[in-house]
Amino acid sequence: MDTPWLTSEQLAAWVRFIGVVELLPGVLDSQLRRDAQLTHFDYYVLSQLSEAPEHTLRMTALASRTAATLARLSHVVQRLETRGLVERFPCPRDRRATNARLTDAGFDKVRASAPGHVDTVREYVVDALTPEQLTQLGVISDALLRKLDPGNDRAEIYRRYDPL
Amino acid sequence: MDTPWLTSEQLAAWVRFIGVVELLPGVLDSQLRRDAQLTHFDYYVLSQLSEAPEHTLRMTALASRTAATLARLSHVVQRLETRGLVERFPCPRDRRATNARLTDAGFDKVRASAPGHVDTVREYVVDALTPEQLTQLGVISDALLRKLDPGNDRAEIYRRYDPL
Repeated sequence: MDTPWLTSEQLAAWVRFIGVVELLPGVLDSQLRRDAQLTHFDYYVLSQLSEAPEHTLRMTALASRTAATLARLSHVVQRLETRGLVERFPCPRDRRATNARLTDAGFDKVRASAPGHVDTVREYVVDALTPEQLTQLGVISDALLRKLDPGNDRAEIYRRYDPL
Repeated sequence: MDTPWLTSEQLAAWVRFIGVVELLPGVLDSQLRRDAQLTHFDYYVLSQLSEAPEHTLRMTALASRTAATLARLSHVVQRLETRGLVERFPCPRDRRATNARLTDAGFDKVRASAPGHVDTVREYVVDALTPEQLTQLGVISDALLRKLDPGNDRAEIYRRYDPL
């Protein structure tokens, strides 16, 4: 393999960044588990459905929006279904496809959980950075997503928010 | 809860950043699983040991360096032990504590796996950003780690690399 090793400047940035990538999900998980009996992934699934028309998405679309394999997503949605937060049914326009829809209880759950989650996002990320750094982080993340998510499954999500 | 909602600029940066945080571990995992039969977490555990004196760390120190609970780490180390990459033994200076040591096979594994991993880090992160953006990402990550890791368990790791 002809890969050159990282320079010390590159390595210094990388070890810090990967530290954040490892630690942040645990912090988001802990708060949501404690206050809403949800993992961050559960919350993300519910919040994606809450923003979709009729609170409904195809399972395949939900998988790509949540960066999950269909197997992982099915497992999580089954758990949320048992709790009465989501329901699955065959897509009326394509019987081979399955849709997931947020129930009323699921929508209430997202609404009730959002403030505590936003509080955590503020504490650990938004308020920890200057406004300029947060803008930089958005631009940097955009560049990384072009590599990580070349099919751009998330473009539709991002268009809903103001452009950077 | 008195948390104000995020502004549209803050939300735009957050949804992109959390997209990266969700997608990046899967990309690192896929390459290492395919080429080295390791998860990224396995690799991170092995690489931390490979950089420690005598390739040995207390399990508690290894847990804090890898941002894992002791229960999760024990599970992973047990798996690596079965594969002959790590061995555990009582700490000679404190019999109640357990040490983990990289075996020779474990060290060979890290050395053999590193180039492919670095190649992935280059492709998806380092080479996807300008040098200025990578520096910004290091400074931003430092600020986030002060929140995410206030005990600063990782300070010793970071001091080994050039200062930002």
